[in-house]
Formats: sequence, C-alpha cells, structure tokens
Amino acid sequence: MLPPAFVEQLRQIVGRDWVRDDPAALDAYGQDALARIHPPDLVVIPGTTLEVSAIAEACSAREIPLTVRGGGTGYTGGSVPVRGGVVVSMERFNRILEIDEDNLLAVVQPNVVTGVLQAAVERVGLFYPPDPASLEKSVIGGNIAECAGGPRAFKYGTTRRYVLGLEAVLPGGEVIRTGSKAVKNVVGYDLTQLLVGSEGTLAIITQAVLRLVPLPPARATLRATFPSAGAAVEAVSGLIRSRVVPATLEIVDAASLAAVARYLGEELAPAGTGALLLVEVDGLAEAVVEEARRVGEACRAAGATEVLRASTPEERDRLWRVRRELSPALKTIAPTKLNHDVVVPRGRIADLFDLLQELRDSFNLTIACFGHAGDGNIHVNFMVHADDPDEMARARRAERLLFEGVVAREGSISGEHGVGFTKAPYLGLELSPDTIALMKRVKQAFDPKGILNPGKIWTE
Amino acid sequence: MLPPAFVEQLRQIVGRDWVRDDPAALDAYGQDALARIHPPDLVVIPGTTLEVSAIAEACSAREIPLTVRGGGTGYTGGSVPVRGGVVVSMERFNRILEIDEDNLLAVVQPNVVTGVLQAAVERVGLFYPPDPASLEKSVIGGNIAECAGGPRAFKYGTTRRYVLGLEAVLPGGEVIRTGSKAVKNVVGYDLTQLLVGSEGTLAIITQAVLRLVPLPPARATLRATFPSAGAAVEAVSGLIRSRVVPATLEIVDAASLAAVARYLGEELAPAGTGALLLVEVDGLAEAVVEEARRVGEACRAAGATEVLRASTPEERDRLWRVRRELSPALKTIAPTKLNHDVVVPRGRIADLFDLLQELRDSFNLTIACFGHAGDGNIHVNFMVHADDPDEMARARRAERLLFEGVVAREGSISGEHGVGFTKAPYLGLELSPDTIALMKRVKQAFDPKGILNPGKIWTE
Repeated sequence: MLPPAFVEQLRQIVGRDWVRDDPAALDAYGQDALARIHPPDLVVIPGTTLEVSAIAEACSAREIPLTVRGGGTGYTGGSVPVRGGVVVSMERFNRILEIDEDNLLAVVQPNVVTGVLQAAVERVGLFYPPDPASLEKSVIGGNIAECAGGPRAFKYGTTRRYVLGLEAVLPGGEVIRTGSKAVKNVVGYDLTQLLVGSEGTLAIITQAVLRLVPLPPARATLRATFPSAGAAVEAVSGLIRSRVVPATLEIVDAASLAAVARYLGEELAPAGTGALLLVEVDGLAEAVVEEARRVGEACRAAGATEVLRASTPEERDRLWRVRRELSPALKTIAPTKLNHDVVVPRGRIADLFDLLQELRDSFNLTIACFGHAGDGNIHVNFMVHADDPDEMARARRAERLLFEGVVAREGSISGEHGVGFTKAPYLGLELSPDTIALMKRVKQAFDPKGILNPGKIWTE
Repeated sequence: MLPPAFVEQLRQIVGRDWVRDDPAALDAYGQDALARIHPPDLVVIPGTTLEVSAIAEACSAREIPLTVRGGGTGYTGGSVPVRGGVVVSMERFNRILEIDEDNLLAVVQPNVVTGVLQAAVERVGLFYPPDPASLEKSVIGGNIAECAGGPRAFKYGTTRRYVLGLEAVLPGGEVIRTGSKAVKNVVGYDLTQLLVGSEGTLAIITQAVLRLVPLPPARATLRATFPSAGAAVEAVSGLIRSRVVPATLEIVDAASLAAVARYLGEELAPAGTGALLLVEVDGLAEAVVEEARRVGEACRAAGATEVLRASTPEERDRLWRVRRELSPALKTIAPTKLNHDVVVPRGRIADLFDLLQELRDSFNLTIACFGHAGDGNIHVNFMVHADDPDEMARARRAERLLFEGVVAREGSISGEHGVGFTKAPYLGLELSPDTIALMKRVKQAFDPKGILNPGKIWTE
C-alpha cells in the first residue's frame, strides 16, 4: 500500500486522469511479452519531462520503487515492476519532434513506435535500421533501454549505433542532457552509451536524438536451404570470406521448419532440409547485383540444395513467410516458449548447434532455433509445458548448461533481450564478482537509493 | 618526491630496468603533442597485466597519481601527468595477439600502433577504419582512451564502433573484462563503451577485442575547388541529399590553402579558391563508379570551379598532397598552433565558418581551418606567437567565443581530441552542473581515491 499523501501528490503532478490503480490497469501494466505478472501499486502517465522529474523526486523522497514502461514488448521482464511501487508509463511521449534531412537525424520522444519512426523517415528517403521483431509495438525508449537489435544488425549495428544524445531524468529528479546533435562528441564520459542497454535502472529517458542513414535504393532477397545446420553455417563463413556484408543473414533450424510446416499444413522447404538461410543484401543497385551473385555462390559452394531469389516484393514476402510464421507455429509445439537470445562469435555457431543437439538428447527437450547468423545471435526456444514440473526442471537444467556453454565459447548469455529479472540469476556465469561490484557502484552513482527498476540485472 | 620504499616496491614489481627517473626520461614522458611539459616523478614500464595490477594497487595504497601513457600523440594533454606521480607507459604491450578472419575481429595489446594494425589486417583483406592523423605513431590504447576519429569516421564511425571488449585494470588493482568476442552483448552496463573516451581516468586498458570489416575492394578520390567555403558546404549538403555516403569528406579553407602554397612555393588549387573538398568513396567497384559520378554532380551543382578525379594511386597521392602538407605549412604562419577540434551538426558548418570570420576580424587573428566536413568536425587552428602576450590574450578570448558558439549551434567543443587538461576549464560551457556532478560520481565508482590521471576533464 502506498501512502495516500504520496498518491495524492502524484495526482497533483500529472492530473487525476493520468493516475490509475484499478485492478485491470495494474494487471496490464504489470507484465511484458514474458507474461509473468507483478502488478505495481500505481500507474502514473506523465505528459512532460517536468512531470517525470517531479514524479522521480517524489518517489525518491519516500524511497518508493519506480519502474519505467514503454511498449511492454520485452522478453526478460525489464519493464515489470517486480518490487511493486509506481509504474511510470511513457505512452504520452509519442511524438516525432524533428526529422532533419540535412543532418541525417531525428529527435523523438521515447514512446514513438519503432515502425512508425521507420515509416516516417523512409518517406523522405532516410533509414532507421534497428528492427527488433516487435517493431510494430515496441518503442524507441524501450529499444534504447534494452539496446534492441534485429535482423539488420549484422550490417547496420544495433540501436546503440544510432543514439547520438539523450534527455533523461535521474532518480533524484535532475534532468540531464547527454551527447548532442553532432555525430562526434568526446566531452566527458559517454553517458549516452552508458544509458543505452541499462534496462531502465539508471535514468528515465524523455527524449532522444537519433542518427539516420540514407535509405538503400536497392535490395535483393535470397533463400537457401541446406541438408544440415553445419552446411548453412559453412555458407555464412563462405560469405564472410568473400567479403560480402549482407544486411540480413537469418538462420532457421529443422525443428523450427517442422513446426511451421505442421502449423501451415504445407512444406515451405524441400524435404530433408536441415537448415535454411534468409539473406538480404542492400545498397546501390549495381552493388546489390554483385553481392547477390556472391551470396548465391557461397551458398552453393557450401552444399545448398536450393537457392531462390526474389525479384518482386511478392516473391520477397513469400521467401520471408517461413520466418514470419515462426512465432505462431512454435506455439503449436508447446504452450510455453523459454526464449533465449544467446550469442557466440559467428564462427562458433556450428559448435553451438552441436551443444543444442546434446541438450535435446540428454534432457529429452524440444528446442527450436532461429536467429541472426551474421551476429552469432541465436534465439534458442525451449518449447515446454509450464504445468509439467519434470519437463520444466529439465529445461532449467539445460538452460544453465546453454548459458555456461555460450560463455565458454567467448559469447554472451544475451545479445538483444537484456538481463531483466529472468537472467539475473545467471549474471555471475558471464561477469566476474569484481565487474559486477563495479556495475553496482555505477548504479549507485546514478541511483543512490536504488529506487529505479529494482530487482533487475542482479538479484537481491 | 616519492617515498623511497614505494619506488623500491615498483622496481620489485617490474624489474629495475623498467623503472626510470633520469631527467631525460621524465621530460620525454611528461609531454604529448601539445608540448606542455609536466614531468612525472617516475616512469614505470610494465610487461604484463599482473604487473599493471600490482602497480595500481601500490599507487592506490599510497594515493599516488598514476597516469597511463600510450603513443603520446594527444592534443589536449590526456597522457600528461599534470599532478606528477607515476607515469605507466604501456610500450611493452605492443603485440597483435590474434587476427580472426572468420569472426572479423582482432585481439590486440594497447600499444599496437594504429597504422601497424591496419597494415596487418589489410594483408588478409580486412579493414580497421579509424584513421586519426597520428596513425603512424598513435596506439590503439590511446585511440580507445580518446575515442579517436579521423577522415573515415563519416562513413565508418569512430574508434567506439570497433571496440567489442576490453581487459582493464581498475585503480585498486582489480582486473576486469568487459564485453566479449560476440558482436552483440547486452549483459549488464556497457562498461566497454564507457571506457572508450574516458581519457585514462577510469581504468588502465591492457587488452582489446576489435571488430574488423571487409576491406572495400575499390575506391575513388575526387578533389573539388569552390569560390567560397559556403559553396563547398553546399556541395556537402547536396551530396547528403543525393544519399551518397563517402568514406571521406574533408574540407580545407582558404587560409590553410594559402599557407600550403606559401610553404611549397607552388599553388595547388586554382586562383581564387575559397575552399577545397577532398572526397573518397569506397566499396564494390560497381557502386564506386556510381557514387563518384554523384559526388562530381553535387560539387558542380554547388558551383565547383574544378573537379579532379584520381584514377591511379599516384594521382590519388597528388590530390591528397594539400592535406598532407597542411601541418608543416601551418607552422610557417606562426610557431604556435592552438588546435581545436570543434564539431557542429553538419548543416551548420557554413554558420560556423561565418563565426570564424567574425573572430578573425574582431580579434585580428590568423585562423586556419580544415577537417571532416561530413561529421561537422572542423579543426580550427589559431596560429599564434606564444611570446606575444597580447595576441595570446586575444586568442584566448576568441577561443571561448568559439566554444560558446559551437555549443549554441548544438555541437560540441571536442569531436576527437577529448578534454584533457586544456579544455577542462570550458567543460561547464557544454555540460550542466548536474551532468558534471553525475560524471564525477561515475569517476568515484571506478576510482574512489582519484589517483587515475588526476587534473583531467574537470579542474580542481
């Protein structure tokens, strides 16, 4: 229960209509794509940076937990108020303030939907590359908080590369501005990059200056099928050796293909396919032709059984269909998907697939994999029944071995989704006690009272 | 005077041959490219990370300043031990440990010379893009500490974009590892990016994992001359509008051209040239042809008086000659160069040039400008005589107006060189007191005793 005087203070700050405590709201704002509900005590929906600052100050004065919420599309519970308190929903911060064609930048409020920003800049021939799967719902502020990636990260980098400057509110209420509109800035510590990926634990982002690039005028899409995951990975290595940098380089494994076929009642790939690659190259038309040729060559050299190339938007849609249908299809295998975005150095993907096969065999689990082969960032989906305690226990044991395995292979337990609260117990597998202690001191520097998004990144 | 027992302790750690306190050494290790000497009390030259750790622990125990030194090529005194104490020179950390063609990365020790790394990776068809002017002498550790840029940053980004992971020693002696060999990693705060550009004030970098990209197979170089700086900047905007992203987009102003002509006794540009652009495009041969065409078109549309294109390496060298001869030529104008790497949003370069003309006129100063037009990052060189107190006073007044001017234009007082001690007095022009206070708390999180590179970034 929050102190009534505190609730009244928040009502004064944002206006009564923008404070909610009805059970429906508390439930809705107490979960993200992970669907593990921890309802807050109160939802507050500010409209200005000053209001955000006043809310932070009020929470700070009483040491009440404050969890910021954007689109609520995260997979690790980053926006879930596990310690209760106040959820600050940024939904009213939904405007694109500026698209500056001369300087190739945009100034946006944090709750602009990623896909909406992309469409807006593409209308003037510009491009905002980060493309998390949730882009029709996820918002820029959440993308920044989690450092969202997506298929295009191989060529274009993740969200991090596109954030030039931020306006943010510290837990004590101070409003800071980091970076600038200049593409280079080395004055003081790079707080901009420190806030990117900090999972809402350091500050509340209220505005962002984003870098844009010219929209590539041409694109080609290829789909290649392989007898085995090893052969597909060999094609990826071949591509790299032929010095092509595709915009997108997605891999889908046999378990995922089988799920899609069952779901659609139709095979999308030739019988016996062990893995499939979706490759897109983009740029000037002249370069695209040459790169597509090299992609086809590398796939065939690695033993591709079929290489298709789209020449129309409809054909492109058809090639991407298998990837699009993956999410609903996986649900037909088992109701619960434990989705892990592990990452290894690209050359070790085959090795990672071997480990996954061992885990399938040892623990009698269905594990479907797809993801960003160029980045070595594989979405490993343990398909389980939450009401089967034995299967869940096997999945948890396999999960830990997976995390240990990627760290042993010089990778990371998360490439895109962040730690949130679901991966917090595993932090020590990847980071040393000294490194974690240092991160906690950095947290202290921003949030001495520990009110911002408590219970995330580390447990306790 | 350092306590003799402490000096003896350092001798035990690294061996007697690797500790120096002779005046010649103290002078040599007490300055960088800025040439303002502050000799340390002792120079220590460790050979291993463990030795670095032991040195840090010893300095920490007695609260003795520790300043790390790489190539000593900085322009803001970043490696100069302004508070005396110990200089830790990393010169023995000079090995490339790994070039991994499959994963497009290199593992290096911090004192690998930038140009040496570039040559090594280019031999296997790979590319490390950051190219500070000092690249034949500067080292990767220093590039990381200052977030070095260079002409290619417009297309390829600065050093920041190429650092995947670090091994570093904290001031208390703890060895930490940040990031990984994976190109994506969102586990905990991004300490890697926080260390990039931290000017040696947070930790001592002992190893780096660097991202590489394929070496572009083709390149074209163009040089265009314009009647005015405004016209050259208009050509840059035209280029951006035609959605070309040149690898390099350098501008040289009339004062700089005049200095080169006087120095060489030969005009390199047509009479009446107000500014010159050097543009390089790179990529697949097919794309390079098209992009070079668009560059020529944009320059002519903006009123270029001459557009030259190199078709051989010799011709390329000839086009670049004016840029190469700039440094020695400027010295013929006046013995002292106050070199500032200010940056504005690209579209405001013309506006910045107007401000510089006002400063020339109001303060009767010679100011020569050149730099990275694509980034809005202009090297503004106040050419002065250090023994003329009146001229120096005018230059200092103009400097402050320049810094205020770039901040008012939404830019930054430093795009490449960092703050060091020379720009520390101006930090408050760009950053708010709340932001500076936050940065100091971050510093505390790493270095509670304040021993690492004291006197940098902020004064006191």
